[in-house]
Amino acid sequence: MSPARGDAPSHLAMGPGGEFDLIRTMMARWGTLAVGLGDDAAQLPGDPRTRVVSVDAAVDGVHFRRGWLTPQEIGGRAAAAALSDLAAMGASVEAVLLALIVPPSWDADVPALADGFGEVVQAAGGRIVGGNLSRGETLSITTTVIGTVARAITREGARPGDLLCVTGTLGGPGAALAAWTAGAVSSDWARARFARPVPRIAEGQALAAAGAHAMLDLSDGLVSDARHLAAASGVSVVMHPEQLPVGQGITPETALGSGEEYELLVAMPPAAVDALRPHWDAQQQTPLTIIGEVQAASVEHPAGTVRVIPRNSQSAVRVEFATGHDHFSPS
Amino acid sequence: MSPARGDAPSHLAMGPGGEFDLIRTMMARWGTLAVGLGDDAAQLPGDPRTRVVSVDAAVDGVHFRRGWLTPQEIGGRAAAAALSDLAAMGASVEAVLLALIVPPSWDADVPALADGFGEVVQAAGGRIVGGNLSRGETLSITTTVIGTVARAITREGARPGDLLCVTGTLGGPGAALAAWTAGAVSSDWARARFARPVPRIAEGQALAAAGAHAMLDLSDGLVSDARHLAAASGVSVVMHPEQLPVGQGITPETALGSGEEYELLVAMPPAAVDALRPHWDAQQQTPLTIIGEVQAASVEHPAGTVRVIPRNSQSAVRVEFATGHDHFSPS
Repeated sequence: MSPARGDAPSHLAMGPGGEFDLIRTMMARWGTLAVGLGDDAAQLPGDPRTRVVSVDAAVDGVHFRRGWLTPQEIGGRAAAAALSDLAAMGASVEAVLLALIVPPSWDADVPALADGFGEVVQAAGGRIVGGNLSRGETLSITTTVIGTVARAITREGARPGDLLCVTGTLGGPGAALAAWTAGAVSSDWARARFARPVPRIAEGQALAAAGAHAMLDLSDGLVSDARHLAAASGVSVVMHPEQLPVGQGITPETALGSGEEYELLVAMPPAAVDALRPHWDAQQQTPLTIIGEVQAASVEHPAGTVRVIPRNSQSAVRVEFATGHDHFSPS
Repeated sequence: MSPARGDAPSHLAMGPGGEFDLIRTMMARWGTLAVGLGDDAAQLPGDPRTRVVSVDAAVDGVHFRRGWLTPQEIGGRAAAAALSDLAAMGASVEAVLLALIVPPSWDADVPALADGFGEVVQAAGGRIVGGNLSRGETLSITTTVIGTVARAITREGARPGDLLCVTGTLGGPGAALAAWTAGAVSSDWARARFARPVPRIAEGQALAAAGAHAMLDLSDGLVSDARHLAAASGVSVVMHPEQLPVGQGITPETALGSGEEYELLVAMPPAAVDALRPHWDAQQQTPLTIIGEVQAASVEHPAGTVRVIPRNSQSAVRVEFATGHDHFSPS
């Protein structure tokens, strides 16, 4: 093991947060043994298509609570969250591996959990090719996903002048979580957005084919994920709160901080967005909305900066917003 | 999701056990959505080399206890257990992904854990290309490993007349576990075999090149794993207890049931073993020992049968032995 010597240059810069601090600690220990960390998925070279691989965990009590979701929804949501990382690379889905840690109290729910998991994998066009089953005190579902892509879209290609676009309608998972943690009832729409997210596989491929420069999926929340994209690309971004595609009754503040949306955030040249628009509206059920622009990093707004500014505002005053939740922040 | 309809023909038959019953339940729910389950690793076609992928979890309180091992050993052992599945396919190591679930009480140990994990990946010739970090109540390390191989050795190719061979010296992990659970002190050798297993990557490649018919790694215990090989290959096997390569002070009974050895069990034609022997002894540090034979399945000894019979015994009386531990058996 090489001595600690900072991140290898091949890694993408990541935004702030306790989780990412711990990841940076591990990257420093690993030195050049680790390559290309920080993107939605790792790339394994292949001809004619690159294989892309990612892993994601869903943990009872952290990513969901048993009373909130049915076992079928828990299984499906775990698969969707992992598959969303392939969507963010513009990839098609090839294969999935499922590592389950199952306490005895969950044994009777495993068939329903497997059904929900399988339905989402099948809808995404994948196959289940392996897995692992262990006992443990807490249910967790760790999903490895493998896809293929002709040209992988990473987080690091955004350029000044690109438009920032997002798929779907935001704020549902954040609103559902806020309701549940307050002991209230979530709206049906918000609950469905939390319980049954859809990985945007076809949308990611369409955006890649249309010339996307950089892309990721919204897991930490729009502001946090935009920071990752801006940091990896060495740019700053501006988002306009009144342009955000929010669900009924959802505030822009909720949409900016709502995690686990599994929608796609993409940076594209304006001409590519214009050229894509008629095809998108004809072929995709999911809205595609322009929410901001990519700007060059500057002394005032260094790489990784995310500003939320009303479009017609003359002032550069930053709007305050709730950030995405970070399970690793000191409480 | 297809209705439950039994295992798809592409899956390998697995031996008995509560864990495998739950896996069979999931396979039945998935129908043709799941392919090729039951081997050490999944195969993804490629030219000129097939990629092989596997996932393995190490859970605190299930696969180890915090007081038994250092954090560095815990990290290294998790990597070794996963990489061992690539060894069992005869593959070389390409890439590793690490999904960590970390309770706050483990945060200070993450650097040492990362060191141990990285050292084993590096020694095996791999790179760390991705991962995931989550909070949770129980530490778990779920490792996805990706390798490449010209011809993957599965569990299903053993033929009557093949010799059954094993790498290494058996019984250490079982003896260490027995000592610790009895509140006693393990021997240094047995402790090292439990704490710092070595994935037999070079050995697996040598056995594949020499013409191995079927291979797997010893994770559940010699008898349990021999059952998997026999079931998958549609044969029965006979092992001779006096031929087992056991550590000092280890009984054959302990060696037959000792799990998490991460040695390789291989079925090969006698001529291939003879031809390999001089190269093996010159190049490998690890012993290779003939411990039995593969026989045709019969009415008396159907596919999947494992018999443990002294070589010179006239009787076919089965020797009683401890089976591997099964975290999923009713207690």
